[in-house]
Amino acid sequence: MSNEYVTINDVTLRDGMHAIRHQYTKEQIAEVTRLIDASGADIIEATHGDGLGGSSIQFGFSKETEKDIITTAVDNAKNAKVSVLLLPGIGTIDHLKRANEWGAQVVRVATHCTEADVSEQHIKTANELGMETVGFLMMAHRTSPENLLNEAKKMASYGATTIYVVDSAGALTMDDTRRRISLFKENLDTEIGFHGHNNLSLGVANSIAAYEEGATRIDASLAGMGAGAGNTATEQLVAVLNKLEIANGVDLYKSMDAAENVIKPIMERPVQIDSLSLTLGYTGVYSSFLLFAERAGKEYGVDPRDILVEIANMGAVGGQEDWIIGVAQDLAKKQKVYA
Amino acid sequence: MSNEYVTINDVTLRDGMHAIRHQYTKEQIAEVTRLIDASGADIIEATHGDGLGGSSIQFGFSKETEKDIITTAVDNAKNAKVSVLLLPGIGTIDHLKRANEWGAQVVRVATHCTEADVSEQHIKTANELGMETVGFLMMAHRTSPENLLNEAKKMASYGATTIYVVDSAGALTMDDTRRRISLFKENLDTEIGFHGHNNLSLGVANSIAAYEEGATRIDASLAGMGAGAGNTATEQLVAVLNKLEIANGVDLYKSMDAAENVIKPIMERPVQIDSLSLTLGYTGVYSSFLLFAERAGKEYGVDPRDILVEIANMGAVGGQEDWIIGVAQDLAKKQKVYA
Repeated sequence: MSNEYVTINDVTLRDGMHAIRHQYTKEQIAEVTRLIDASGADIIEATHGDGLGGSSIQFGFSKETEKDIITTAVDNAKNAKVSVLLLPGIGTIDHLKRANEWGAQVVRVATHCTEADVSEQHIKTANELGMETVGFLMMAHRTSPENLLNEAKKMASYGATTIYVVDSAGALTMDDTRRRISLFKENLDTEIGFHGHNNLSLGVANSIAAYEEGATRIDASLAGMGAGAGNTATEQLVAVLNKLEIANGVDLYKSMDAAENVIKPIMERPVQIDSLSLTLGYTGVYSSFLLFAERAGKEYGVDPRDILVEIANMGAVGGQEDWIIGVAQDLAKKQKVYA
Repeated sequence: MSNEYVTINDVTLRDGMHAIRHQYTKEQIAEVTRLIDASGADIIEATHGDGLGGSSIQFGFSKETEKDIITTAVDNAKNAKVSVLLLPGIGTIDHLKRANEWGAQVVRVATHCTEADVSEQHIKTANELGMETVGFLMMAHRTSPENLLNEAKKMASYGATTIYVVDSAGALTMDDTRRRISLFKENLDTEIGFHGHNNLSLGVANSIAAYEEGATRIDASLAGMGAGAGNTATEQLVAVLNKLEIANGVDLYKSMDAAENVIKPIMERPVQIDSLSLTLGYTGVYSSFLLFAERAGKEYGVDPRDILVEIANMGAVGGQEDWIIGVAQDLAKKQKVYA
């Protein structure tokens, strides 16, 4: 195991957007930014949950404008850099340029694990703008470690200086994580990052496994504030990093207090592992399917878990949430037939 | 990695007692036993949280008598064996004989990690009674792997057929767990078990690490119902075991439904990782100190975390909860001096 410094990229104000339907107020963004900054995390991500341009009918409107979200974070971060998420197709080059003007210093260009090609222009433009560029390979459990490496190599060739293994659905086991990160470490010259969700209760463990294999940049959010079962919780990760004597820049007590006293009260419902989020991790379905499955389950009187299992078998990826209604209807019909 | 069957020892009705101040009703014990039994777990533990004889002024009175707790579990378990916990000093040979008469087939004789000597009579008597005997070395983070092995050897010499590494405070990292279990595997002829708590969010991960090193008996509770941040949650563990194709006998959906629909509504407060339970895992203090520290913190106006850090530095073990008042008073005095 190396003994390198871990850069924490806090996603409370981006992935955490999902947990409150993107409704953070400017005041909350300002307060949370100040707390994260004061706790010592090196990068603070602030964007709509689905990235630049995400505020829309399809993904839900954010409470504040993109400009207000980003500039509020930038204005309140004394030491930390501010990063933005960009999913090509949702966000555009124009969005990127504006984010840069507003003060974002880091962009994380995110694609499905098999679609790195679509990140080329965005990574190149970000480099031209002088931004730090990170490639973000989502749903990393959905392809083999070897294929994931090939996609990572594309992002590196476009100029990304850090590439992430992104466990969007919290579906990777520790060995799954190790295989992906170690392959990256052997074959890439970039820095390597890991973004975990806690659906299988492995967020912290996978982050540590990733570090042991060579990842030096780890995503986390206070109290795990994020989609589905939540992200790796910053304060829990930092406690374990400290026990392992791995430097990370974050003050444990400050992160614990911010999580407990500020973030938990903001949550609309507790971000935790429950039947549905556990099913997401178990089946490996993208967390954006969760609310849709719950709603459709209620409407058609079927178990949302059965919907998600079926959706996983169909190989659905983010953006295909509309498949859910059809699946729910089919399951409801089958129930009637067998009732 | 071996590919052996994992025996799940469910502790919802024993460690879970702590989470509701030992107040399970007979009806709840009956229902929960039937659900665990139907889910397929092989062993169901039902005893006061602090084991046989635990119902007392010192540890809190259980709602039901020891006889009712045990016989209700025995009467409602069709397939699973019922186990009881016994901490020598709290429980006696007489308690053990009665538990055996009431139908308990397994006894787990628990001592502090450096005090296996006190388990001799109890393990020997249990063997004479024809019970299955398990040695349970608590607070396993508090001594070196080598010392823990020496204590385990004592329990084996008394006749225990399974020996557990018990992470009472949820303070072991994955490497800490591996070192202890692998040393047991190399040097003991007994079966090896692991009991984890989730204070550092490593309950499931440590259980998997323990399995990989040779543990074939794992403790878990539905929804993590247990002391402090809770135990390794059965449904989360089973989801990961299933993904790793490790047979364990438990039906995932039944355990998820029981956790969600029956156990969570019984909880007085959510069993989760919060500032205090994270501090317990971080400092390695026994979870029985938690409520005392909270109370003393309020009474003397000091941060309960500072009390626990101080208690950990003093090397306090279970039973020394009365140290907390003195620590709280000292901290309060220091605050005044520096205020």
